[in-house]
Amino acid sequence: MRTDARLDLVRRLHQRDVRDSRREALIEGVRFVLSVDPRRVRAVVWSPKLVTSGPARRWVRARERDGVPLTRLTPEEFRSVSSARRASGVAAVIRAPIAELHATHARTHGPWLAVRTVRAPGNLGTLLRSAAAFGAEGLILLGGSVDPWDRDVIRASMGGIFRLTVARGDAPDLARWGQRQGISILAATPDADDLLGRRPLPRRVVFLLGDERRGVSAEDLRTCRGRVRIPMAPGTDSLNLAQAGTVLLYEAQRTRPPPRGATRGERRERRGR
Amino acid sequence: MRTDARLDLVRRLHQRDVRDSRREALIEGVRFVLSVDPRRVRAVVWSPKLVTSGPARRWVRARERDGVPLTRLTPEEFRSVSSARRASGVAAVIRAPIAELHATHARTHGPWLAVRTVRAPGNLGTLLRSAAAFGAEGLILLGGSVDPWDRDVIRASMGGIFRLTVARGDAPDLARWGQRQGISILAATPDADDLLGRRPLPRRVVFLLGDERRGVSAEDLRTCRGRVRIPMAPGTDSLNLAQAGTVLLYEAQRTRPPPRGATRGERRERRGR
Repeated sequence: MRTDARLDLVRRLHQRDVRDSRREALIEGVRFVLSVDPRRVRAVVWSPKLVTSGPARRWVRARERDGVPLTRLTPEEFRSVSSARRASGVAAVIRAPIAELHATHARTHGPWLAVRTVRAPGNLGTLLRSAAAFGAEGLILLGGSVDPWDRDVIRASMGGIFRLTVARGDAPDLARWGQRQGISILAATPDADDLLGRRPLPRRVVFLLGDERRGVSAEDLRTCRGRVRIPMAPGTDSLNLAQAGTVLLYEAQRTRPPPRGATRGERRERRGR
Repeated sequence: MRTDARLDLVRRLHQRDVRDSRREALIEGVRFVLSVDPRRVRAVVWSPKLVTSGPARRWVRARERDGVPLTRLTPEEFRSVSSARRASGVAAVIRAPIAELHATHARTHGPWLAVRTVRAPGNLGTLLRSAAAFGAEGLILLGGSVDPWDRDVIRASMGGIFRLTVARGDAPDLARWGQRQGISILAATPDADDLLGRRPLPRRVVFLLGDERRGVSAEDLRTCRGRVRIPMAPGTDSLNLAQAGTVLLYEAQRTRPPPRGATRGERRERRGR
């Protein structure tokens, strides 16, 4: 691809519809390119004059050896495609797939998250960082509102999103999918009778998190096998979405039976006991 | 106070040194003034033309009945003191004390948080929202770096900061304070041997959270009775500061014995069992 065409594509990846149709996203900055699985990298654009970090230069050379197309830019060209305040000089076009939920299979026993709307991309990213840390398997997007490959999501996830399966469907897909995969869907709602920690969680679970202001919609609730709420101090009734999700995932990890074949040490480690 | 003098003061409350020396802070917007304990309100500035919400107008009248000084502004004057993108027309000067740690007494058995640096004010605010939800008693600021009354902290805490005692001291103060109050200081560090959930937490505890990049400093670690880490999936090693703090507070609430005199229902509710 000629430099002009590559620059144009990179610029267009700032638009969501382009990300969606190409199933690609852009990551920028030394820290972020170093955190991504190299097999996801489709192209690298960089400006050698701007990149002073040794690890970043080695990373670029390693991608070149992998056969990834490299485009060298002048600092001015790089700045013209960068959305960062201080252009780092290195960016990568990465595979950013969103699977169809009905064609997605759960492979581990880790929990899933499902969301329909999230007001701040950084908040979703933070939640995905927790999801990766607590061994979640994937993120289910209900409807078309959430863009998981927004750069603020990727950035706040600190690489967490790369460890998750990302799938999209709608409420009926989720209900069918849960049944077929043997995974229970639990809505987190402040009016649930069941308190988190009171009864064992289902062995395999999707936590459905509602909108920060309006909560889980009636339609989405119908996909759920149950509801759960996080116990809170009297007079308080809400947590930030990422905090609520993190607590649910922590609790799922804490109480999950050890996988078969795990050693005693691994089991202890996993369960925090 | 004349309008000009009041406007000048309100403007200056956007500066940290003014907040510190006056022990006052500014909150703006209908949602925020409605969430604050009225006893904290020292003055109200508002622009009747901008305030269309019935509850906000009733709130202003109620403060007037309380004897709180009110300043009426034109929309232009209000906009000149507002830092919001869309001026809501109502703001309040509130008491924003930071106690000296050595003169502070723990009154409940709720956990405390201690931080020395927090990179994003919104992140601290989110953590304080969780702290209130999980019945924490207070926030200890080590050194002078963190400003708990920054408007982004207040905003993200969703009223949570108003439920906490805020105190400042330094590492030696914290060590002495913990001893005198019978409260154990536990550092959250990724290299701790003790996994959260493995052993009972101390009955009364301060969770000391480190800087997002550099962790807990060696000096601060010396104030601690122990260290604890949150169990995470292999290959991952970090949570956002607010997420880590939220998990620690959740775990403290989950395992805390019920207060004396609590009914069985309250005990069940509190412990999520």
